[in-house]
Amino acid sequence: MANLTEFNLAESIAVLTRTPASLNTLLRGLPDTWVRGNEGKDTWSAFDIVGHLIVGERTDWMPRARIILEHGEARPFDPYDRFAQSREGGDRSLEQLLDDFARLRAENLAALQSLTLQPEDLERRGRHPRLGVVTLSQLLATWAVHDLTHLHQLSRVMAHQYRDAVGPWSAYLGVLHCEGHSAP
Amino acid sequence: MANLTEFNLAESIAVLTRTPASLNTLLRGLPDTWVRGNEGKDTWSAFDIVGHLIVGERTDWMPRARIILEHGEARPFDPYDRFAQSREGGDRSLEQLLDDFARLRAENLAALQSLTLQPEDLERRGRHPRLGVVTLSQLLATWAVHDLTHLHQLSRVMAHQYRDAVGPWSAYLGVLHCEGHSAP
Repeated sequence: MANLTEFNLAESIAVLTRTPASLNTLLRGLPDTWVRGNEGKDTWSAFDIVGHLIVGERTDWMPRARIILEHGEARPFDPYDRFAQSREGGDRSLEQLLDDFARLRAENLAALQSLTLQPEDLERRGRHPRLGVVTLSQLLATWAVHDLTHLHQLSRVMAHQYRDAVGPWSAYLGVLHCEGHSAP
Repeated sequence: MANLTEFNLAESIAVLTRTPASLNTLLRGLPDTWVRGNEGKDTWSAFDIVGHLIVGERTDWMPRARIILEHGEARPFDPYDRFAQSREGGDRSLEQLLDDFARLRAENLAALQSLTLQPEDLERRGRHPRLGVVTLSQLLATWAVHDLTHLHQLSRVMAHQYRDAVGPWSAYLGVLHCEGHSAP
C-alpha cells in the first residue's frame, strides 16, 4: 500500500471534482422521458440517482472519513440509507437537485482538502457496520467509484427508455444487455 | 409506430447534443490513470472510446441516414469499422479528440436538422449489412443509445482502475461486476 498516497488522493479528487458538472451537462434540460423514466417497479430514474448522490454527500463520505480520523475502529459507521432520497426533495426539480449536488460536493471536497491528509492518514482504519475493517484510502476510492457506478446505472436507465426504439440494433448495444449490477 | 415522430426525434437530439460537452467535462484534464487505463489486453481506454465516437460521426450515423433517404433498401450500409480509431489519431491528445468529437457532432446535428424530417420520413427503410431492414427512426434512436452504451463502458473502464483500491466495498459497487456487454 506504500504508494497509495497523495498521488492517488489527487486522482480520486480529479474524478470527484468533475462528476457534478458532468451530470449537469448531461441532464439539465433533458425531456422527462430521460429524467423520469426508470427500469420498472422499484427502480431508479435519473432524478432518483441524483437524489441518492446528494444523500451520500450529506450522510456518508465525509462523515465516515471524520469517524475514521476521530474514532478509528472503535465507532462503526452509521449505515448508509439507500432509500433516503425517496423521502426527501420529492417536490424539487432536477435542476435544483443538480445545484444541491454541486454545492454539497464542492463543500465536501473543500473539507477533504482542508484535512491535508498525509500518506499515513490514508492507512488509518475504521469499521464498516457490515464489511468490517476498512481504511481511509478505501473509503475515498469508493467515493469516486460510487460516482462511476451511478454514471454506469444512469446510462443504462436512460438507454432502457429506447430499448424498443432501436429495433434490431439492440443486439449490438451492450448497455441494453446489462443486468443492473448497481442494485444490491 | 405512429407516435414515433418529431417528438422522439427531439428527444434523441436532446441526448446527442449533450454528449460531447458531458464527456468533455468528465474527461478533460484527468490524470492518465483514468484516460489511458483499459480493462486488459485488446480492451478500450477512455481515449479509445472518444476515438471510436469520432469514427461514428465521420462514417456511420449521418452517412447511413443519407443512404436511407437516397437509396432506401436498395443500397446496404457500409459496415461500421469498430477498430478504425486505433489506426487514426494515435498521436493526438485526448483534448484534441474531445474537440474533434464536439465539432463533428455539432456539424452532424446541424445536417440532421437541415433535413427537416417529417413523421413519414422516420419510417423510411434501409438495409443494414447484417441486421437486414431497419428504419430511419431506429437508426437515429441507435445513434443516441450508442452514446449511452459508450458512457456505460467508459464508467466501467474508469472504475476498473480502482478495482483493488476500494477494498471490501467492491461487493457493493455494481459497476465492478459488469461483464462488459459493450464488447461484441
